Order: sequence, then C-alpha cells, then structure tokens
Amino acid sequence: MSTTIDVPESSSHNVSKGKAATIVAPKRPGGWKKGVAIMDLIVRLGTLGSTIGAISIMATADQTLPFFNQFVQFEASYDSFSALQFFVVTLALVCGYLVLSLPISIVAIVRPHAPGPRIFLIILDTIFLTLASSAAAAAAAIVYLAHNGEQDPNWIAICNQYGTFCMETSEGVVIAFLAVVSFIIMIITNTLALGKH
Amino acid sequence: MSTTIDVPESSSHNVSKGKAATIVAPKRPGGWKKGVAIMDLIVRLGTLGSTIGAISIMATADQTLPFFNQFVQFEASYDSFSALQFFVVTLALVCGYLVLSLPISIVAIVRPHAPGPRIFLIILDTIFLTLASSAAAAAAAIVYLAHNGEQDPNWIAICNQYGTFCMETSEGVVIAFLAVVSFIIMIITNTLALGKH
Repeated sequence: MSTTIDVPESSSHNVSKGKAATIVAPKRPGGWKKGVAIMDLIVRLGTLGSTIGAISIMATADQTLPFFNQFVQFEASYDSFSALQFFVVTLALVCGYLVLSLPISIVAIVRPHAPGPRIFLIILDTIFLTLASSAAAAAAAIVYLAHNGEQDPNWIAICNQYGTFCMETSEGVVIAFLAVVSFIIMIITNTLALGKH
Repeated sequence: MSTTIDVPESSSHNVSKGKAATIVAPKRPGGWKKGVAIMDLIVRLGTLGSTIGAISIMATADQTLPFFNQFVQFEASYDSFSALQFFVVTLALVCGYLVLSLPISIVAIVRPHAPGPRIFLIILDTIFLTLASSAAAAAAAIVYLAHNGEQDPNWIAICNQYGTFCMETSEGVVIAFLAVVSFIIMIITNTLALGKH
C-alpha cells in the first residue's frame, strides 16, 4: 500500500506522468522522453549553427593595416596564431560530429524509451564537449592576450592596431562558448531522460 | 500490482526507495554496477590527486634569472600570466568539487542500483570537466606561446631564458589533461551503468 502512494515526482511532467500511470502501465511514464529527444535535436541543430558561425567568423577575420609600424606589421588573420588554427580545426571536427550525430538524435525521437541512442549521445557529446571547450579556451587565452598583452614577458597588446580583427575573433570565441553551453544542456537533459524510468 | 513494480527513482529519496526496492525487487542484474561505483571512487581519488599535483606544480613554478636581460627581465611565476592564474583558480574549484563529490560516489557504492547519485555525478562531472579542460587548454595555449613564440605579433619565446619555469608549467598542463581524461572516463562508466538495466 505504501508503494502505491509513492508516486514519482518530476517537476515539469506531472500531468503526462499521472495520465500514463493511471491508464496503463508500470513503466512508460509518457511522452516527456520524446519531448526531451525533440529538444535535443533542436539544441543540436542550434549547436551546429553556432559552431559553423564561430568557425566562419574566426576563419574570415582578417585585417591589414594601411600604414607601416616598426614593431607590429603583419596581416592579422587566424593562421598567424597557432591557438586560433587549433580553434578552427577542432571546431570543424566538432561540426562534423554534430552532423553525424543528427541521425542518432532522430532515432532517440522515434524510440524515446531505448537507452542505447542516449548513452551513445552522452558519451560522444562528452568527448566533443571537451574538444570544443579546449578550443574555445585556448583561443580565448590568445584573444585575451591580444587585447591586454602581458607585461612581464613583454608580449604587447595588438588590439590597439588590429581592432577589427580582435573584435571578430572575440565574437568567434563567445559563440564557441555558447556551443559549449549547448553541449552541457544536451548532456544534462539526456542524462535525466536516461536515468528516469 | 502493477503500481508496486513502478518504483519511482529520484535522487533525494534513495534510502526509502532502496528499502522498498530490496523488499520487492524485480530487477537486480548483478554486482557489476557496484564494481563500476568502486572504480568511479578510485578514478575520482586519482583525479583529485592529479588536480592537486597540477595546482601545486603550477603554483610553485618560479624562476628568476641571475643575469640582466635588456628585453626580458622578470621573475617568471604563474601570477605573471593571466591564463596560468585562471588555471590555478579553476583547478582549485575543480579540486573542491572532487572532494565534495566523494560522499556521493560512496553512496553509489552502497546503493549501486539507485540512479540518483549517478545522475548527480554525471551532470556535475560534465560541468567541472568543462572547467578543467578550459583551464588546461588556456594554460596550454600560453605555455605553447612561451615555448614557440608567435612571429607575426612579435610575441617572443621566453623558454630559452626561463627553461625551468617552462618545463614545470608544461608538466602542470599535462597533468591537468590527465585529470580531464579521468573525468571523461568517470562520465562514460557512470553513463553505461546508468543506462544498463
């Protein structure tokens, strides 16, 4: 008797759960897992879009000064900086993974109660989250250095001269961190959907 | 009868749930989940150790040159570099989280079939994995720059002069990436244990 009183509590899905439990069924808590899977697909598409945006902003950021400066004279573009090259290459890999993961996300919509697709997505998302956050952080460190310089090792700030380049690369970094946050959201929702029965 | 099988799973009610489940108990696939939980604790302790190691190596890396150099003259230590300060502070946060997560990992050993602790660990591990990989990557970008310099913006390599400092910071970065790999291992194993029934 005590177990029948012990109805599962989940913040957002009380209505659907209640219905499913009364009509059928020991463990088909309703359509909320399908909702999570649809949300995963939408967030995944958004992540893909922001990754492509970050790559394209970073790869096209380019500025040559019209005047000659004795100390700093170069055409500023991403391939002048190892960390920004790493950013572009790594985010391209992440982008490729996101495209390949779309079918798995669709399988999770079709079969919302199968744990397999979700396990697969959580594990691969975790690995590519690490890659994406590493790329974003490495680029952020270099862009920060370009903005502020570092006094002690005599690395001068170049953003006074290359303002447009710095603004564009900063935008790329910010968008990459948005993709990182999206990855975290996907992992959290899929984990919750995997764990609740 | 069907409702008694429908044992609700929720992170905060493990004790009462666990009791109810052991009395009724339809699905107990064996002790391998306990093994996973024990492995999680061991890997977690290893991660904690490597995080502490990375912090202490980075925070104590310190080198002052005996001679005066016209261009580069400073006491090289982590607080000369914003990215290395970020590294130390962020890994200290990660370290604190790892200590606080040990009791949850022990709960997962005591109650290997409860999903709550695992969900909790996967979600928080994901967030702190992001922090740890960001810290490691930002520091790696700066240490790489210290080793190789960057020709176009005229950021010179300082590792010719500060070899010991560079070697120690590089070690710190490598150890931090070991901690990142350990985080990934913990997330993967916990996800597999959460998904299989």
